[in-house]
Amino acid sequence: MLAMAAYRLGFRTHIYADEGGPAFDVTARSTTGSYDDLERIATFAQSVDVVTYEFENVPVAAAYHAQRWAPVRPGPRALAVAQDRLQEKQFAWELGLAVHPFAPVDSEADLRSALATIGTPAVLKTRHLGYDGKGQARIAALQDAAAALASIGRHSAILESLVTFAFEVSVLTVRGVAGEIVHYDVPRNEHAGGILSRSTVPSLLPAEHVAEACRIGARAADALDYVGVLTVELFYCPGAKDHFLVNEFAPRVHNSGHWTLDACHVSQFENHIRAIAGWPLGSVERHSDAEMLNLIGADVLDWQRIAADPTTALHIYGKNDPRAGRKMGHLTRLSPRRAHRAAK
Amino acid sequence: MLAMAAYRLGFRTHIYADEGGPAFDVTARSTTGSYDDLERIATFAQSVDVVTYEFENVPVAAAYHAQRWAPVRPGPRALAVAQDRLQEKQFAWELGLAVHPFAPVDSEADLRSALATIGTPAVLKTRHLGYDGKGQARIAALQDAAAALASIGRHSAILESLVTFAFEVSVLTVRGVAGEIVHYDVPRNEHAGGILSRSTVPSLLPAEHVAEACRIGARAADALDYVGVLTVELFYCPGAKDHFLVNEFAPRVHNSGHWTLDACHVSQFENHIRAIAGWPLGSVERHSDAEMLNLIGADVLDWQRIAADPTTALHIYGKNDPRAGRKMGHLTRLSPRRAHRAAK
Repeated sequence: MLAMAAYRLGFRTHIYADEGGPAFDVTARSTTGSYDDLERIATFAQSVDVVTYEFENVPVAAAYHAQRWAPVRPGPRALAVAQDRLQEKQFAWELGLAVHPFAPVDSEADLRSALATIGTPAVLKTRHLGYDGKGQARIAALQDAAAALASIGRHSAILESLVTFAFEVSVLTVRGVAGEIVHYDVPRNEHAGGILSRSTVPSLLPAEHVAEACRIGARAADALDYVGVLTVELFYCPGAKDHFLVNEFAPRVHNSGHWTLDACHVSQFENHIRAIAGWPLGSVERHSDAEMLNLIGADVLDWQRIAADPTTALHIYGKNDPRAGRKMGHLTRLSPRRAHRAAK
Repeated sequence: MLAMAAYRLGFRTHIYADEGGPAFDVTARSTTGSYDDLERIATFAQSVDVVTYEFENVPVAAAYHAQRWAPVRPGPRALAVAQDRLQEKQFAWELGLAVHPFAPVDSEADLRSALATIGTPAVLKTRHLGYDGKGQARIAALQDAAAALASIGRHSAILESLVTFAFEVSVLTVRGVAGEIVHYDVPRNEHAGGILSRSTVPSLLPAEHVAEACRIGARAADALDYVGVLTVELFYCPGAKDHFLVNEFAPRVHNSGHWTLDACHVSQFENHIRAIAGWPLGSVERHSDAEMLNLIGADVLDWQRIAADPTTALHIYGKNDPRAGRKMGHLTRLSPRRAHRAAK
């Protein structure tokens, strides 16, 4: 979707990945190579005007290496923060943003002491390489500690308290090379089995809370001198002193912003390309109300019914195998824009 | 734009063209070959599930040949009709659709006799390979006849009377494999120097005239057993007995429908792909009012100002050389949808 946004503006792309995939069909050039192959990464970076990435598990070393030949936007520091749940929480906390109580866990002793401080229920999460609910274990009581640590493979971890919240929202912040910032409307996100299932705009947050969420996105983007789309997942706690807890940063376009393809003048994908290319940022105006539903695993087999629904725009990603839990596509249900109504 | 619409639905494309171009960057496979190279066309057609085309000057013989190995949608007959202005007029006339008075011209004697019947002012047009105002000569008076014939290279031609009309509109009809039909809203088209410069929806035609225009599109599509997007250019003559004169058929997606990319749930490109793939046709609903402006030649050099306009969606085609008269991109200016107002 990023490549197609680039071609829509007349750019040409060169995609580097450790294995081929649907994006290799919509690019002028592609290179298959390991993210540890610094020589190949250097050759790649020398062939382009600007480097970006679309998933946060590109090794930070690869990004630093590429930066010797071409600007890397967003910069490697955003990757470093997003790859390590501990750094991520510390980064948010140092910016004065509210986060769950958390503690680093490198051993069972750490875990026991962290549980004593934070209490139960709590969630143990690997510091690295977790996504879509993977690498996480819930701890209901102290005696679950050893099993939880084993279940996440005894990796370096953090313990977070399980804070109750009304729902999750995400802020999709676009920041340009000169530091200019725009935000898409803030979607409300729902998950099933740890995987995003639905994002809805408007979220029905009160307008002042939407503004507060956007300030969080802007603060993080400024602190990282970020260029491109930055996504911040927030837990909404309307009754609390802090209305939002920062859950996670994603240094990229985000699944919860896929509705922007169909409901906005300029999509998150195009605005990411505009930002990294040093172009003027595009309008984030939303012309329609929208609900984005992920097509996960076998959901996509229902394409014929979905394609016939007159309210719906459909996207199928061209992946071969509709495995359980795999994001195969999404749909956006559009409706005429209604005046803002506040959440109850 | 057709290839990108295909990838959005999870299809893969193989593009055949007589020379490379921007589309070759967004396709899994491409073949460069002459449209007369039937052997290469056969190999190409054997590699795909369905064949379509995006410009009407593909030789009819190539389309018939491809059809031996894969369905060609729309069928070769649509190409034949669109490639020959004489067949085109006869086809419309036989369907009972109103056309300009016309006569075939194969010699100066023909032209003199046609001018005697049709009168002046009139337009002499080559039967084949005319577009964007090329291959045409206006005849103000009888003594211009010889010069007009010379200026179009003495090709087979037709003479048309110069009928006054209020403005041009186009009907964008989508017809599926089972004969189901939908129409986009009818844009009003303005030209400069023979090239489309602006298409606007709504057109401000009275609703019953919009319906009449759509019936013309449906009639032509049914007569051709057409599959895909068929465009019919119509001259609007509100005071006349026939409100529309058929100007031209284009057996393809059309420049006057480019606004559907930004103002509709499903674009003309995606609906063309859906139709030829035998999918359910997508919603042609228009969520916004729209004005499409072509970026011709050096217009595109103004991209920075256009990209910064918050009402605008921008498309640049990735062509290298902004020659005068060359379509380099387009923009769509969006505004909230207003209630229908009739044209004065």
